[in-house]
Amino acid sequence: MKNDCSYIGCKQEFIDAKEKVTGKAKYLDDMTLPGMLYAKILRSPHPHARILSIDVSAAEALPGVKAVLTAKDCPNNRFGLEITDVTMLATDKVRYVGDEVAAVAADTEEIAEEAIKLIKVEYELLPVVDDPEKAMQPGAPLVHENVKNNIAKEYHLSRGNVEEDFAKCDYVFEDEFSTHRASGCYMEPFGAIAKWEENGRLTIWTGLQSVFQGRNEIAKALGIDPTMITVKSPFVGGGFGAKIWIRNFHPIVAVLAKKANAPVKYVLTREEEMLTTRPRVAPRIKLKLGMMKDGTLVAKQATVIADNGAYSWAAPKILLNLSMRTDCLYRFKSTKTDSYLVYTNLIPTSGFRGYGNSQMHFALESFIDTCCRKVGLDPVEVKLKNAVQQGDLTLHGWKIKSCGLKECIDKAHKYIQENRLPKEDQNGRIKRGIGVACMTHVSGNRGGDKFDGSSAMIRIHEDGKVFVFSGEADLGQGSRTVFAQIAAEVLGVNISDITVMPLDTDVSPFGLGTYSSRVTTVGGKAVYLAAQKVRKQVIEFASKKLDKPEDKLIIKNGNIVFTEDETISITLKELCNLGIRTREAIPFTAYITYDPPTEGTDANFYGDYSSAYTYGAHGVEVEVDTVTGQVKVLRVVAAHDVGKVINKNGVEGQINGGVAQGIGWTLYENMVFDNGKPLTNGLKNYILMTIKDMPKIESVIVETNDPIGPFGAKGIGEPTLIPTGPAIANAIEDAVGVRIKDLPIMPENVFWAINEKGDKQ
Amino acid sequence: MKNDCSYIGCKQEFIDAKEKVTGKAKYLDDMTLPGMLYAKILRSPHPHARILSIDVSAAEALPGVKAVLTAKDCPNNRFGLEITDVTMLATDKVRYVGDEVAAVAADTEEIAEEAIKLIKVEYELLPVVDDPEKAMQPGAPLVHENVKNNIAKEYHLSRGNVEEDFAKCDYVFEDEFSTHRASGCYMEPFGAIAKWEENGRLTIWTGLQSVFQGRNEIAKALGIDPTMITVKSPFVGGGFGAKIWIRNFHPIVAVLAKKANAPVKYVLTREEEMLTTRPRVAPRIKLKLGMMKDGTLVAKQATVIADNGAYSWAAPKILLNLSMRTDCLYRFKSTKTDSYLVYTNLIPTSGFRGYGNSQMHFALESFIDTCCRKVGLDPVEVKLKNAVQQGDLTLHGWKIKSCGLKECIDKAHKYIQENRLPKEDQNGRIKRGIGVACMTHVSGNRGGDKFDGSSAMIRIHEDGKVFVFSGEADLGQGSRTVFAQIAAEVLGVNISDITVMPLDTDVSPFGLGTYSSRVTTVGGKAVYLAAQKVRKQVIEFASKKLDKPEDKLIIKNGNIVFTEDETISITLKELCNLGIRTREAIPFTAYITYDPPTEGTDANFYGDYSSAYTYGAHGVEVEVDTVTGQVKVLRVVAAHDVGKVINKNGVEGQINGGVAQGIGWTLYENMVFDNGKPLTNGLKNYILMTIKDMPKIESVIVETNDPIGPFGAKGIGEPTLIPTGPAIANAIEDAVGVRIKDLPIMPENVFWAINEKGDKQ
Repeated sequence: MKNDCSYIGCKQEFIDAKEKVTGKAKYLDDMTLPGMLYAKILRSPHPHARILSIDVSAAEALPGVKAVLTAKDCPNNRFGLEITDVTMLATDKVRYVGDEVAAVAADTEEIAEEAIKLIKVEYELLPVVDDPEKAMQPGAPLVHENVKNNIAKEYHLSRGNVEEDFAKCDYVFEDEFSTHRASGCYMEPFGAIAKWEENGRLTIWTGLQSVFQGRNEIAKALGIDPTMITVKSPFVGGGFGAKIWIRNFHPIVAVLAKKANAPVKYVLTREEEMLTTRPRVAPRIKLKLGMMKDGTLVAKQATVIADNGAYSWAAPKILLNLSMRTDCLYRFKSTKTDSYLVYTNLIPTSGFRGYGNSQMHFALESFIDTCCRKVGLDPVEVKLKNAVQQGDLTLHGWKIKSCGLKECIDKAHKYIQENRLPKEDQNGRIKRGIGVACMTHVSGNRGGDKFDGSSAMIRIHEDGKVFVFSGEADLGQGSRTVFAQIAAEVLGVNISDITVMPLDTDVSPFGLGTYSSRVTTVGGKAVYLAAQKVRKQVIEFASKKLDKPEDKLIIKNGNIVFTEDETISITLKELCNLGIRTREAIPFTAYITYDPPTEGTDANFYGDYSSAYTYGAHGVEVEVDTVTGQVKVLRVVAAHDVGKVINKNGVEGQINGGVAQGIGWTLYENMVFDNGKPLTNGLKNYILMTIKDMPKIESVIVETNDPIGPFGAKGIGEPTLIPTGPAIANAIEDAVGVRIKDLPIMPENVFWAINEKGDKQ
Repeated sequence: MKNDCSYIGCKQEFIDAKEKVTGKAKYLDDMTLPGMLYAKILRSPHPHARILSIDVSAAEALPGVKAVLTAKDCPNNRFGLEITDVTMLATDKVRYVGDEVAAVAADTEEIAEEAIKLIKVEYELLPVVDDPEKAMQPGAPLVHENVKNNIAKEYHLSRGNVEEDFAKCDYVFEDEFSTHRASGCYMEPFGAIAKWEENGRLTIWTGLQSVFQGRNEIAKALGIDPTMITVKSPFVGGGFGAKIWIRNFHPIVAVLAKKANAPVKYVLTREEEMLTTRPRVAPRIKLKLGMMKDGTLVAKQATVIADNGAYSWAAPKILLNLSMRTDCLYRFKSTKTDSYLVYTNLIPTSGFRGYGNSQMHFALESFIDTCCRKVGLDPVEVKLKNAVQQGDLTLHGWKIKSCGLKECIDKAHKYIQENRLPKEDQNGRIKRGIGVACMTHVSGNRGGDKFDGSSAMIRIHEDGKVFVFSGEADLGQGSRTVFAQIAAEVLGVNISDITVMPLDTDVSPFGLGTYSSRVTTVGGKAVYLAAQKVRKQVIEFASKKLDKPEDKLIIKNGNIVFTEDETISITLKELCNLGIRTREAIPFTAYITYDPPTEGTDANFYGDYSSAYTYGAHGVEVEVDTVTGQVKVLRVVAAHDVGKVINKNGVEGQINGGVAQGIGWTLYENMVFDNGKPLTNGLKNYILMTIKDMPKIESVIVETNDPIGPFGAKGIGEPTLIPTGPAIANAIEDAVGVRIKDLPIMPENVFWAINEKGDKQ
């Protein structure tokens, strides 16, 4: 039993840690249902082709095959998010290598795989567009015939008057940056099991980040009511944004299960993950920056052309974030952005930790740094000078209720400077540099009038044990533990007495899901409020039973104690028994729907968008091998304003993971295509960070006590990756004087930059 | 879509009817889990014996056997209800034929069965007591060594002064009656599947009538916290009281599953059901009745010696009901009862539809009838004269808030007289008679300060579909349908838009379970109130959206409609979307804990005991073959005060089923023992009613609009069986002038009674 110690801010072991490290935790692929079949999907080998015919007769004839699907067997409902351009299986043509063409359910994976090979598809190859700028040209092949110039979406955002402001600036700089596709590469491949129940309802087990949105999307694809589907989530091995939304395989397994009249499991292979897992939106960003001699940032203008890939999921929303969020990092007077999302015959892009924000941060935080260097200003001082602060109303209407940006910059800079190694090694081959980059992100997400809250139910049972229900998903980030800590803290019970229930759309209170770094903030706040409401039931009843005033009673270690004489007390278990099992009829249950007081945005995307805004700065020290161009990250100081730490283990885990993923995105990971054909098809040729590449990471936690989040907390899921890339690029310039403007920063790019620079000198 | 029609009082098809009649509904035995093993239990062949040794080595050595248990492998916790006299497996001795001695889990049922046969048990036979009166004698063998005279429980209840009152009576009668054991014989044999989850928790699937009480009892037996266990209920094929409480097999399968490290299923065979399913408590009842010449009933005295069998479950409580409830049927001035519950080496008795009340009704309703006949009074008039009425405070402190007893007697009597056949057939061999008997029962059950309520949660999802959560069980009686009707009525939606969720102790709101005919009354009331609370959320929000006053809005057919101009409306689906998916953040969810305003009873069992009291009267016409003694029931008029009909199909189903079971109990069913050894071990020699024996049943529904139940409803589960037996006995006396005082009324009893009577004349 934990004594007199708060659960908030401690280093709390994850409540499911033991299950996970002992291998007992059940992930989707550990699940087996009686009579379950295995699905495989036939995918397009071509980036763009017309389907002339499909012959499934040989596949259907293979013993052990229970169902074969082509588009004609599926409901013909288009689905997707803003743009509904997706069908379950390809109808007329295929639009990228990996596009779903046919599906099989069979007794074993091997038979299904064999059957897939027996399906004969006749294709007519079509010209490929693999570059968004070319795709926008008149006469370019169209990915979707009805979409002119392949432009899926465009935004034109303007605050203030950039033209006037640029005219008044001492300096105006222009440059171009680009970032690339990167794959989620979460530990657990995505998948689903579908089972039609005897009463005609559909159960789907899948590790979605948003079970309710997933339920609704699957329903849309199948053309049935959402509540005819129950989505249940087993343990989930990571998502990073790529598991927020459904994939084609979700409705496909449902239709296969229906046709085969048996449960069907489908789990992606790692190769399929690489071919089809929605990677980061890849933009080319033209930036124009106006500043004064004293370092005041005045105006920012951007033109963005982003590669959407073959279908749109979250990419329109991601492009919007990309186009806006960094405008709220500094006190710009005006900003203007024109953005285009363009279809190509490449893998469709979608959400990935940062949700567009990391891309523009790479560009802007690189650009400010290099501009400052050019005119002899200290980039860190410029950033400190211009940083948004608590109380600000930003250009896009964000109300900054808490802000630790300056403290993060200060500390990241200070700590990365301390103990830094000499600028170069003794023989001059290895050069070292430091760089700092900042970030802002949301912790919540309210466009327009949308709900941005969460619901929670808490119930204390007869034995004094507490059950917490939430609709928000834990992909491994530890939100179940955070919820348990919040409930334990408010209710004064031991965390081992708390059960956080698994996700089930029939049972879990409505939650939007795990994205926009919102789960601790709004999901946690709902849990906090539900716990407060149950606590009130406990204290009121204890006051009656102990005949002591409510304000003189506290709950600690599962006992309700009279503060003036601690010998007077009653255990929660005893109290619950008395309350539940007698005419007192106390429910010891509370259901809360919480929505933060954010105002949301207007049609022009102006307004207070998120429950809270998060800030951070990374200081990075790198060394560059000037002979090979190899960059090695030596140290990262990651300073983050988390509002208030709930679980120090969780925050540090997010920082370690985010930094690692940030380094990987910046230096190693790269999806390579040749005329639309992917050359990186697995972990053998798609290079991830390994433990050997990991630098020393120093976490600096800044607490600003946000007024809205539970106990003052803000989200930390996405922010930790955002500033790593530009900080590395800035450190490289500090080390070797070259500016790499396109991700990834491969040794050859650095090598050629150094040598080109050398040539010029 | 149902138009302008109320769901209350209609003939509503059961919401799960299609699943059941098409065979799709999954009962426990339809369930299979991956890696699941099958359990068998070795049972005592002796009614009373000491266990000298158990050798399981051969069983353990049998290939496919995964676990073998004897008492030494099990937690040594005694469990049970008031009297905790049960252990999981026999320790020192066996106390009835069927007592659990050892258990096996194996890959198949056949292997488990084979293994059971390989277990060698050495017994020392002990003298048997199979008669409670003999068991009470000094020197009788003791079933439990620590229980003196084998008396498990005794009650001595007195209201008023019977001695004084008998002295003033014009007539005082004395006689003896007895009723017998009868087996539940529900369609679906009882059973359970136990699975230990990866996180150390235990899931048990089982068709308990009370999942929460079951969870707690299993926890007690295993010695773990109740919330470490999740009890889930598949479809249940009847229970009639015998599935309220757990059996030994529940903790046994849990321990087997633990030892074998795999899920384990156990389902009783029909023979095991007959050997071990708790049958009715069997009492011998001495009655003394004092009345005046005008038919006023004054005083009643009873002495009851009831056979408990080898272990106590609900029998103490049943004996209490048996000793009290009929005292509240008429306006007695005084009553006195002395009751004894006595251990024997027979199958343990427990709950069965009526829960003791049917036994005393047989005695009293037979006795009043025969007494009246003796002194030339009309029994029906006497009953009408003395019947309790609305507003009465009965001898035991019951407050009669609604009472249709007189109307039931009137109608049962009137309708059974109409169209009756001639008193005898033309050759005089077949004689015909009619009889009437009355009943009262509870609809709810609050001893002392106990909770007697129920909880419910209702949630409307984004698509306007309604989910209802309750902790009360549907064994087939149709409570899921009743709950759906109540929710549909209050919320103005189509019943097909309502889902009543399955039972799951982790998720379902706390409910006491299905007994005491309480589910419609208190479970239904909780659903009613939760629906009202959600309706308020709907109307309030619709008022805002439609800009119309709340009191001018109604919900019908899933639309919220402005009553003054029905063209102004919004669908529930649209409204829910607007409320859930926007900053309105309406939960459309309500959780209610309802406890009726009953006062409960004091330590002397005095007080208002039940939310409502139910009344009924059966009129029965029989014909008796005077040569064979065979009794045939020709017609039954079953008049019942149900407060208010929710589902006419359900009420009529309960009446048909109750009457059939009542006739069966009275005329056919009989558990026969020979020195403790059961001779009736299956449906081949235990005779149930069949369709060929069914008389015409006329249901007469009396509505008294109870002030507490939902829409005025009261329970109808148990009442329908209670008066059938005495009405038959009364009709037999009417037909052939003999009074059969001991159940069952077999042809030989009637034959000998007629012939004995003939001898005497």
